Amino acid sequence: MADGVAVHAAADALIEHLGADMVLVGDDVERYCRDWHGDVTTGALAVIRPRSTADVSAAVTAVASLGLSIVPQGGNTGLVLGATPDQPLAQVVLSLERMTAVRRIDVDDFSAVVEAGCILSEFKDKVEAAGLFFPLALGAQGSCRIGGNVSTNAGGINVLRYGMMRELVLGLEVVLPDGTVFEGLSTLRKDNRGVDLKQLFIGAEGTLGIVTAVAVKLLPPVEQVATALVGLASLSDAIALYRRARRDCCDLLSAFEFMPPVAFTLAREAMPDLAMPISGDYPAYVLMEIGGSGLVDIEDLMQRFLEGVMEEELVLDGVIASSKAQSRNLWLFREGMNEGQAKRGAHLRTDLSVPLSRLAEFVDQSEAAVMKALPDCLCVSYGHVGDGNVHLNVLPPAGLPRAELDAFLYKAKSVINDVLDTFGGSISAEHGIGRLKKADFLARIPDVQAGLLSAVKHAIDPKLMMNPGCQLNFTAD
Amino acid sequence: MADGVAVHAAADALIEHLGADMVLVGDDVERYCRDWHGDVTTGALAVIRPRSTADVSAAVTAVASLGLSIVPQGGNTGLVLGATPDQPLAQVVLSLERMTAVRRIDVDDFSAVVEAGCILSEFKDKVEAAGLFFPLALGAQGSCRIGGNVSTNAGGINVLRYGMMRELVLGLEVVLPDGTVFEGLSTLRKDNRGVDLKQLFIGAEGTLGIVTAVAVKLLPPVEQVATALVGLASLSDAIALYRRARRDCCDLLSAFEFMPPVAFTLAREAMPDLAMPISGDYPAYVLMEIGGSGLVDIEDLMQRFLEGVMEEELVLDGVIASSKAQSRNLWLFREGMNEGQAKRGAHLRTDLSVPLSRLAEFVDQSEAAVMKALPDCLCVSYGHVGDGNVHLNVLPPAGLPRAELDAFLYKAKSVINDVLDTFGGSISAEHGIGRLKKADFLARIPDVQAGLLSAVKHAIDPKLMMNPGCQLNFTAD
Repeated sequence: MADGVAVHAAADALIEHLGADMVLVGDDVERYCRDWHGDVTTGALAVIRPRSTADVSAAVTAVASLGLSIVPQGGNTGLVLGATPDQPLAQVVLSLERMTAVRRIDVDDFSAVVEAGCILSEFKDKVEAAGLFFPLALGAQGSCRIGGNVSTNAGGINVLRYGMMRELVLGLEVVLPDGTVFEGLSTLRKDNRGVDLKQLFIGAEGTLGIVTAVAVKLLPPVEQVATALVGLASLSDAIALYRRARRDCCDLLSAFEFMPPVAFTLAREAMPDLAMPISGDYPAYVLMEIGGSGLVDIEDLMQRFLEGVMEEELVLDGVIASSKAQSRNLWLFREGMNEGQAKRGAHLRTDLSVPLSRLAEFVDQSEAAVMKALPDCLCVSYGHVGDGNVHLNVLPPAGLPRAELDAFLYKAKSVINDVLDTFGGSISAEHGIGRLKKADFLARIPDVQAGLLSAVKHAIDPKLMMNPGCQLNFTAD
Repeated sequence: MADGVAVHAAADALIEHLGADMVLVGDDVERYCRDWHGDVTTGALAVIRPRSTADVSAAVTAVASLGLSIVPQGGNTGLVLGATPDQPLAQVVLSLERMTAVRRIDVDDFSAVVEAGCILSEFKDKVEAAGLFFPLALGAQGSCRIGGNVSTNAGGINVLRYGMMRELVLGLEVVLPDGTVFEGLSTLRKDNRGVDLKQLFIGAEGTLGIVTAVAVKLLPPVEQVATALVGLASLSDAIALYRRARRDCCDLLSAFEFMPPVAFTLAREAMPDLAMPISGDYPAYVLMEIGGSGLVDIEDLMQRFLEGVMEEELVLDGVIASSKAQSRNLWLFREGMNEGQAKRGAHLRTDLSVPLSRLAEFVDQSEAAVMKALPDCLCVSYGHVGDGNVHLNVLPPAGLPRAELDAFLYKAKSVINDVLDTFGGSISAEHGIGRLKKADFLARIPDVQAGLLSAVKHAIDPKLMMNPGCQLNFTAD
């Protein structure tokens, strides 16, 4: 498949099988072949854009008959190169972007069925209009698509209360590598008929099949929200505050985000007009949110909680948003700090988890090791610390030439991963493996797990045509 | 393996491989070969009782070398014949009852690691002593073992708030059919490294490997509980009450059990001294519980909730337990109704789920169909209706001879399943498939799912030696 003539012939054959409406070739494929950060640009033999599950099935069959492979793609907002080809001349991207229907919202069942290509925020809006709530909340929610959320088992800011995407899925419709359709769109809340096959496709990053529709749990609407930003003496105190909040707030805590002081600097680099929400400088900050419906007075709960922890001096200072606008302003800092990092250019992004009880120790040790190895760097550690999840990012000094920059990023990652390994941590708390983390993943996976993954892959995708190169390298057994 | 000499030789060989301490033969195997209800008694070539994961691994290897197969067993409290042999001369039971250690409880991480043979209530007590809470709650919790809870993906009364066992598992240690050990006892809260292999073993009923230890989530202790028993006009109103309670009680609802009026009759047949908790007769009853820790006043919440729904006449009458003893008394009715059914002798037990919005309609239709086909029966429909899960049991008239009884039970089940199929329901909401429900399961499973299950089974257990006869029938591909 390496030469141009064969590539053209294969693209022509796809158009012949599937019709010109479904297949993009040439320059039109470019926008499907750049990753979210714009760090990597690749290519694809074609992009297939089905409008229905039957189209996906036909596409899989056609691609298989040509000996090509498929890279499934949702919103292409993933952070680990799971949805962009690594063999542009032998791979087609299959984009779900035309399958956007919300098939149904069952208010009385607290459930919905939605096609894989529906954009997360559009789905959430429709659910809200129906009087319910879908809790998955990500920075990329205006662009990511719900099928990608399933395939990457997306996390985000509400995981500590509502779980990852896996815990929100009731059923799946999946086109398998042989073109048949796994019809599992049940909305039953409890269904315990043996091995739960749908679990295999959640987090599989399209390596076992193509998710075409999803049945999800919905929740009562969040009628009251209380958001607070507090200053503390240390990350360790922030974790103590989390443990305290889980008990005192009766498991109604829906977000608990740690930020270092530099968050404010970074946020204001991206959003210069942002008003400082809290006076005084503290070594650590937490943005926390409690939410609920009905008869519990959420704002009163937050007030009493903060009074208690301030009296004990666990929290040094704090503000509670008393309006939606104020709450939005607090969250802007959290979002702005990401934009500020992006504005400073390429840097190491990580997505690590360790046991909660050792998170502070891990961040201290990692930052010290990075600072020692790379004295000119800036460490920015923040994230969903209630889950033991931290994004320990490392920014290089400005103006490094490309080769030095690459060496810097590699060194920073290696130093952090070495510390991480001594804590029994995960190199991917929520982002997945894709192609970006594959080498680090494979270097750490025990032989028994690798053998099982390979056995499952060969059993379900014997031609190894579904997103090869993602998660695992397959060789003959 | 069918003749006595060969059986003795195989048993002797097991003892030689594993030592006499680990292997029971002869009469000692009997108590492992009766099901929980005492409906079925079978046999086994031997019972292996390992004391460690290494023992389990050695046992699997020894059994494989003799061409036998293994039926893993926890507390043997399952309701679907998943843990008792169906080929007594070719199967050994592997009981986890000697692996009972709680390996650790990490209070600061809200997690624990426990061996498969630990009895659920003993584990819960240890967690409580450490100041935390493990929410799985089953009638059998004084006998069932945590490995069995994983392998059957156990449900119970707290599912609507905390999920099935699957949602409580953080990690697993599993001995695979080739004797190797899947070491996945991580207690990380978030770990998104691709396909999540542990999911395969949850609910697999020992058909893919033997769960030897489990890492689970723990929760803040439930410091306050409010229990109420209410009377309503219909099951339909009970479901409306559930929807209302989820919103009004801010998702703090931990149990919501529906009972018909006959529940009180049955409970008092088993426990004649039980005091009637509520005056007046109502067509439907709900036992509900709200629980939590910290700063939310749970009793006040229950009070205000009930005031609201009584004012609107959705609830006709109700009592709130104002002490632990009173709460215990309310739950005794729920437990007593099961004992009362058991006292009346063999009857049809079901464990069905349908979409919540259609549950009342389903129960009405099913009961009418059963009454029409079997006019002398008594239908007892109750259960965790908040999850769409109902135990629609059918009691025969007293004194039926065995053959007529069997025909009665078969007829009742067939009539109910026919109605269930028109509602897109599940024949097993929480109990699993085992051997008891296998035929009904296989009659309903689409070919694509059956093919996938078979592919996964062959990939992980190519010799088909793990609990053959449970869940699926395997034939040559």
